[in-house]
Amino acid sequence: MDFSTHFPIWDKLTPAQQKTISQTSFQRSVSKGTVLHNGSVSCLGMLLILSGQLRSYIVSDEGREITLYRLFERDVCIFSASCVMQNIQFEVIIEAEKDSEILVLPPHIYKSLMEESAPMANFSNQIMASHFSEVMWLIEQIMWKSFDKRLAAFLVEETLLENTDILKITHEKIANHLGTAREVVTRMLRYFQSENLVRLSRGTIEITDKKGLEELSE
Amino acid sequence: MDFSTHFPIWDKLTPAQQKTISQTSFQRSVSKGTVLHNGSVSCLGMLLILSGQLRSYIVSDEGREITLYRLFERDVCIFSASCVMQNIQFEVIIEAEKDSEILVLPPHIYKSLMEESAPMANFSNQIMASHFSEVMWLIEQIMWKSFDKRLAAFLVEETLLENTDILKITHEKIANHLGTAREVVTRMLRYFQSENLVRLSRGTIEITDKKGLEELSE
Repeated sequence: MDFSTHFPIWDKLTPAQQKTISQTSFQRSVSKGTVLHNGSVSCLGMLLILSGQLRSYIVSDEGREITLYRLFERDVCIFSASCVMQNIQFEVIIEAEKDSEILVLPPHIYKSLMEESAPMANFSNQIMASHFSEVMWLIEQIMWKSFDKRLAAFLVEETLLENTDILKITHEKIANHLGTAREVVTRMLRYFQSENLVRLSRGTIEITDKKGLEELSE
Repeated sequence: MDFSTHFPIWDKLTPAQQKTISQTSFQRSVSKGTVLHNGSVSCLGMLLILSGQLRSYIVSDEGREITLYRLFERDVCIFSASCVMQNIQFEVIIEAEKDSEILVLPPHIYKSLMEESAPMANFSNQIMASHFSEVMWLIEQIMWKSFDKRLAAFLVEETLLENTDILKITHEKIANHLGTAREVVTRMLRYFQSENLVRLSRGTIEITDKKGLEELSE
């Protein structure tokens, strides 16, 4: 598995550019919890996710977190090469949420390809536009959607990602995804339990009425 | 005044590309309040602002607004060409906040130039990255900064943009910039008045302690 089979614009690159990518890119295994990119202190390069799941988030001065978006199989991550991108003035953290296999294209190679190849530059543009769209969606959620709807949507998404209705996730972790305090999550989960939407026990949240959660989230 | 003198990457375009831009772009005067772009229902093209001030904002189903960023002299607006940009899945509104002079590059010309010119594609990339950065700043403000600090920062910014300490702006309009309700703005302004930071009168807000507002906003 390499860029030639997984990179969407491979056929739009010149043979020389394809050769450069093949010779400089490398595969890396990262275990769950690994921080791949941490704001301006690291610059791994452009990533192509072969398997697993990455999470992109920001963190406040006080240590509060909020998830911006997640990356899945065949997604491409460009903010892990933010050191070679102009005008990026924010710092995201990218970590492996599951054990993952990734292909890495070093930042200076990524930069020189963008400079000489319009398809590569336009591809980066599309990736940024789709992340921008996810962040705009997030703003709309934060500004205009009540927390019960956001939490319901998060729980439904998690059952799909984890492929189980019994979620092993702490209230703290959910709070970090949604950018709120643990107490707020606990209070809302207890309310969901009283409405028979979930059943809470130590370390797990069992979804007992997924249809109800879906309706609530809309 | 045209693209040849104001477009940052003019010298990186081929003579043929320069000629295309010169022949297809046009200047337009827009009066204050004009909506230049309204989500997916319009597609004016790429804009270069010669003078004046534009505002980019989103609006909720219930009609609530929040300002994303503003554009000033020599800024370039690409979301007004969102119909030809891939993966943009959000709808912004762009309106003239002051009487403005703009240069317009039609969307299909913009698109074909991006496809054939790496400098043009990278330039678009940089514009998007800087807007993305402004929106990320906004998320951090909304999530982690209290409303008094946000309002203080907004008032200080307005005195600079309008070049006066006596602002003619309604509480409703401030609420639309900051994504909140008019009552919230009025309450905080009254508190600012009690702290001798501002003096309120019909239709105006006089900044009486700019230094105090600046300190509050930090």
